[in-house]
Amino acid sequence: MTTAKSKSTLFESQLQRVIDGKTKPIGALGQIEALAAQIARIKGSLIPKTDTATLTIFAADHGIAASGVSAYPQDVTRQMVLNFLAGGAAANVFARSVVADVAVVDAGVAGAPLGADGLIDRRIGPGTSNSIVGPAMNEAQSQTAFSVGEEIGEAVGSDIACFGEMGIGNTSSASLLAAKRLGMPVRELVGRGTGVDDAALARKTALLEEAFSRTPATLEPKIALQEYGGFEIVMMAGAMIGAARTGRIVIVDGFIAGVAALYARDLMPDTEQSFVFAHRSAEAGHARVLAALDARPLLDLEMRLGEGTGALLALPLVRAAGAMLRDMASFESANVSGPA
Amino acid sequence: MTTAKSKSTLFESQLQRVIDGKTKPIGALGQIEALAAQIARIKGSLIPKTDTATLTIFAADHGIAASGVSAYPQDVTRQMVLNFLAGGAAANVFARSVVADVAVVDAGVAGAPLGADGLIDRRIGPGTSNSIVGPAMNEAQSQTAFSVGEEIGEAVGSDIACFGEMGIGNTSSASLLAAKRLGMPVRELVGRGTGVDDAALARKTALLEEAFSRTPATLEPKIALQEYGGFEIVMMAGAMIGAARTGRIVIVDGFIAGVAALYARDLMPDTEQSFVFAHRSAEAGHARVLAALDARPLLDLEMRLGEGTGALLALPLVRAAGAMLRDMASFESANVSGPA
Repeated sequence: MTTAKSKSTLFESQLQRVIDGKTKPIGALGQIEALAAQIARIKGSLIPKTDTATLTIFAADHGIAASGVSAYPQDVTRQMVLNFLAGGAAANVFARSVVADVAVVDAGVAGAPLGADGLIDRRIGPGTSNSIVGPAMNEAQSQTAFSVGEEIGEAVGSDIACFGEMGIGNTSSASLLAAKRLGMPVRELVGRGTGVDDAALARKTALLEEAFSRTPATLEPKIALQEYGGFEIVMMAGAMIGAARTGRIVIVDGFIAGVAALYARDLMPDTEQSFVFAHRSAEAGHARVLAALDARPLLDLEMRLGEGTGALLALPLVRAAGAMLRDMASFESANVSGPA
Repeated sequence: MTTAKSKSTLFESQLQRVIDGKTKPIGALGQIEALAAQIARIKGSLIPKTDTATLTIFAADHGIAASGVSAYPQDVTRQMVLNFLAGGAAANVFARSVVADVAVVDAGVAGAPLGADGLIDRRIGPGTSNSIVGPAMNEAQSQTAFSVGEEIGEAVGSDIACFGEMGIGNTSSASLLAAKRLGMPVRELVGRGTGVDDAALARKTALLEEAFSRTPATLEPKIALQEYGGFEIVMMAGAMIGAARTGRIVIVDGFIAGVAALYARDLMPDTEQSFVFAHRSAEAGHARVLAALDARPLLDLEMRLGEGTGALLALPLVRAAGAMLRDMASFESANVSGPA
């Protein structure tokens, strides 16, 4: 009788033999080899498919933006949704460049529904409430955002799922969410977001400390998401779980996606096996989040844009790692001699 | 009258305005923005083409391999050339994955000419002489290798030129070449190459010190190339110059390509403006070479394979940077508000 355990040991030893048998010195492809092994495990295959990819961008607004945490007016969320739909944003340009589909979800943009062609309308509300004065959302909203996210994640038909976000004020939400889970003062997780100056950063930090002090220093994940979440962040956490459950490789973008990944892991620990961390963002709190996730990101390009742009730039590395397993010759098949 | 100087100032200010006008916070794409600016300068265009790419792999053998500097037998160079031609090596797999053509040049593989279909035969000789006992090549060989390289570089028809190498013993050649130009003890530039163990590394270091001590501590570039060069390294240096001269973006791979770039810059200083440094290799000497080139590589994945594999993995980043300039909407074109 073959137990699950011995099956998995067998798979691991086959996997290592396949990787080491490729025509290259042992370990010479460095992190790409580790990535290839992870992809094989996610797909349960020594010849994993890594062709198709989808970027799903979740957009929503944040009540805390009214307190002046961002350099940009709240309207920009809505304007950027239209920019995504028109194909003009960085995420679109990168997606075309690396060959990935883009889907845009309105998770709760402020104002009236946009009713725009091609937009997936899963609005939880016209933005969250201001978490400085009370919970960002109620329990029902949080649960709906999460389960809608799971559905969206499960419906990703591609081999690889990338998730991005857009929402003026969402680095503030992410900083608060990270602080409540990591048990750290929120000031250690605050950054410049879209690029506030020193004075505005000090003001942002003071505002986040006010919001932070409204509740106990640490919170259960579900409570934290209600208190400080953004609709797009909760939905993304659900989507990561849904995509992981259905065997997708989940490429985790930057700071905000990293916080969603932190919560996805808390709510469904198995999910983390499917996470490929795209990049180390320039946003100050990201290093802490990556450390908490024990993550070793593929890229470090001082990017801090969000939208899934980092995930898209990591996508070719994921594909190359998959291709290495599927297509590269072995010493045996290519008649190449091993070490003397 | 418009002077060249004011033209260039105008271009620079237009370029910065275009990049800052894209729908993203200023600087939010980090190193990709700097890369986009460099690409625009190389191509002399605010909408630079970055579509087509070619990897040219130069293969040659090294007399010093006979002294036992590598973990692999010399035959592997020849076997790998056949593997490249059959499409089974990591470089081929990555090239297909990121969409680049591959050309393979026999710059001087040991033994009889391979006469293989698809191989570009520009053999300088059946491998270099052992540089522990005398010059690796004579002046005529070095000049021929260099000018053949220039020709090959000038003939690259693609927007982007990647160069790779294969040659058992060529980290030894590269370490010696780097030491002679950087004025450093060779032991600070020796690494494990394809993966020698501690004892073999000590032996390799001793052998390279012996080769190093045969000539003055520093040498003129052309002399150093004769004394310690590999045919593939000299040819690659020429190819980098030829490709840069004809307006190609030159993606510089790892340690050995980095040494070729160092010499290309010495021989034709303008060339360095066209260099995009792909990655930081795990090979010990690479950090020194990158520092000497004032290079900030795009990737750091602990790779140490050569063949141009790092250059290929950086290629999608170069394309994304070009696409950002060409295709991304501006705040104005997309009606997105700037900072409040």
